[in-house]
Amino acid sequence: MRDVVVIGVGMTKFGELWAKSLRDMFVESALKAIQNSGVDHIDSMYVGTISGGLFVGQEHLGAVLADYLGVNPIPASRVESACASGGVAFRQAFLEIASGQSDIVLAGGVEKMTDGADVTEVLATAADQEYEIYHGITFPGLYAMIAQAHMHQFKTTHRQLAAVSVKNHKNGSKNPNAQFRSEITIDKVLNSTLVADPLRLLDCSPVSDGAACVVLCSMELAKKLSKNSIKVIASAQASDTIALHSRESLTTLKSVTIAAEKAYKQAKIKPSNVNFAEVHDCFSIAEIVVSEDLGFFDKGSGGAAVEKGLTSIDGGKIPINTSGGLKSKGHPVGATGIAQIIELYEQLTGQAGERQVKNAHIGLAQNMGGSGASCVIHILEAV
Amino acid sequence: MRDVVVIGVGMTKFGELWAKSLRDMFVESALKAIQNSGVDHIDSMYVGTISGGLFVGQEHLGAVLADYLGVNPIPASRVESACASGGVAFRQAFLEIASGQSDIVLAGGVEKMTDGADVTEVLATAADQEYEIYHGITFPGLYAMIAQAHMHQFKTTHRQLAAVSVKNHKNGSKNPNAQFRSEITIDKVLNSTLVADPLRLLDCSPVSDGAACVVLCSMELAKKLSKNSIKVIASAQASDTIALHSRESLTTLKSVTIAAEKAYKQAKIKPSNVNFAEVHDCFSIAEIVVSEDLGFFDKGSGGAAVEKGLTSIDGGKIPINTSGGLKSKGHPVGATGIAQIIELYEQLTGQAGERQVKNAHIGLAQNMGGSGASCVIHILEAV
Repeated sequence: MRDVVVIGVGMTKFGELWAKSLRDMFVESALKAIQNSGVDHIDSMYVGTISGGLFVGQEHLGAVLADYLGVNPIPASRVESACASGGVAFRQAFLEIASGQSDIVLAGGVEKMTDGADVTEVLATAADQEYEIYHGITFPGLYAMIAQAHMHQFKTTHRQLAAVSVKNHKNGSKNPNAQFRSEITIDKVLNSTLVADPLRLLDCSPVSDGAACVVLCSMELAKKLSKNSIKVIASAQASDTIALHSRESLTTLKSVTIAAEKAYKQAKIKPSNVNFAEVHDCFSIAEIVVSEDLGFFDKGSGGAAVEKGLTSIDGGKIPINTSGGLKSKGHPVGATGIAQIIELYEQLTGQAGERQVKNAHIGLAQNMGGSGASCVIHILEAV
Repeated sequence: MRDVVVIGVGMTKFGELWAKSLRDMFVESALKAIQNSGVDHIDSMYVGTISGGLFVGQEHLGAVLADYLGVNPIPASRVESACASGGVAFRQAFLEIASGQSDIVLAGGVEKMTDGADVTEVLATAADQEYEIYHGITFPGLYAMIAQAHMHQFKTTHRQLAAVSVKNHKNGSKNPNAQFRSEITIDKVLNSTLVADPLRLLDCSPVSDGAACVVLCSMELAKKLSKNSIKVIASAQASDTIALHSRESLTTLKSVTIAAEKAYKQAKIKPSNVNFAEVHDCFSIAEIVVSEDLGFFDKGSGGAAVEKGLTSIDGGKIPINTSGGLKSKGHPVGATGIAQIIELYEQLTGQAGERQVKNAHIGLAQNMGGSGASCVIHILEAV
């Protein structure tokens, strides 16, 4: 396999972007990424989005967005693995360059969620329609069951769940692209509206519009271009049962443990070598479970870890979601996996400003679909 | 790039499969392909489908179908480029093996179109929603404009268009998996219901359910398995403007000419070296335009060619759509690109029965999305 690097990034601000269409947002982020990378063309592109059809009545978004970006006739495909669509777009771009078929590929993600669709209903198409959704449960309920099980089995407390949201809002307050730049308190989380017991409104990531793009190229080409480049040292993906009820355990996500094992093996590192991570905190409990399944903390101790500040930017064992995560930065579904890569790139090139992690050499991005039926993990290293 | 081969295929019959769900169909075809290939596992899988969300309320079909096939935790992603989704799934599987990350990958496609959705409305999401669909035009109308332009510019006749459908029904009558196994006549086409002038009902491919899968592996591994293997000697893709009105010409499809040029270059062959082809005959005019744009006939002479029998199985210059094509075999959108590969595999391994093309060594599959905004071309060779 050829070595592959990231050489440029660009994203829109995340939020309720009433004045921007899906096409506008994608083009804005893609142009920023292309300009940031300094390349004069791209060979191919991938777009991650969960459901252009249900959200805005437009499928075929690979071709649509290549057209609006003005880059046709290059190959342009859309990929989808629910909320892991962005991670899959990045992975396909990586594989295409690694294979030798292309040298420069743009990987992007976009979602327009505030245009009138019933968001919870659309997102529910990422769970098992026949055995979960048909019976009335949607994602807050599925993650609430994971939270209940974790609290029961490991004495995880709601204060610990709340600490995830508090930390992520603190980080997001330093991110100019974040949807919510306000800090919050434990009490504010605990007193927010109950959504699905024990998850309250401030345990849940928001509904967002936004787009994010990165440009990847072969290491060989990056050397010629003399660009700031960050190497992709692992790309791993795994799946699990679509329905939560089919799993042996509710407190561990098998797709995460398996993808992580593969990723660490590819990168030839251990979890302790990772300096910081972006993980898929669609709900506060998700960050806790994932931080354990990635091997950063023993199973059952993720709640205590965040409460003790071990995942904070300063003085933590491993800073998690320095960007603000899905909770504060926002979660325009298809864009999320790419925005995670952007945070890795900014940290690893020392451009994260107030959020900068000291001595950041290796970063990990974990992007997840459904209640963990899909997981994509990338590890990037400053070279 | 590593050499990649196809080692096994499987598909459902195409048609109105009222008794089979999307999951049933995919699993049936995947199990057939796995059994046919003789492998004891797969490393990864891709699923092409245009809109699980709009057709059956289920996105995240990579994970869903890996689960129902019983192969999780392997990586499983869904890809979409409208009616070219199957071709893109095959391409991603090819790239993943070529890169060296996986050895055995399943590429599949599936669509359940007869479950109550408004099919024309769903398919229209593959055109430009803002500038085409909003104004009331859908795909029959878009291809009718292409037909009008071709008839005006090159004196192509409706009898020539009809000859495409007649030939494809004749071929399909010999295909046990085809939706329509009845032969038709020129007069029957010319007297069928008018859909969008000049296209009549029998100029149009049908609404279908169905699934198709193939197993790909590295050439190296295929040699160890001593399997009947067919080499992928080209994988090329291109895009064009999403809206028809943005193009310089209505009578040539730029995505086809560009993907074809790349494919012939990769395969180191000329159009005249291709022994037979499966092309995207969503409407009769599409086969004529594509047969020209692939370089099989001079621009403007595709209509005369089919009328003279040059694209028939027996005695033709280049047999086209020996499977029956989308017109007779059926067009379950996501499955179509994979079913084309299956026809290539069966022809190149001498298993096409009554449809067998004599001396078939090199076959080409051309799969298209929208009114040609996406095109994926694969060339396969018996080795």
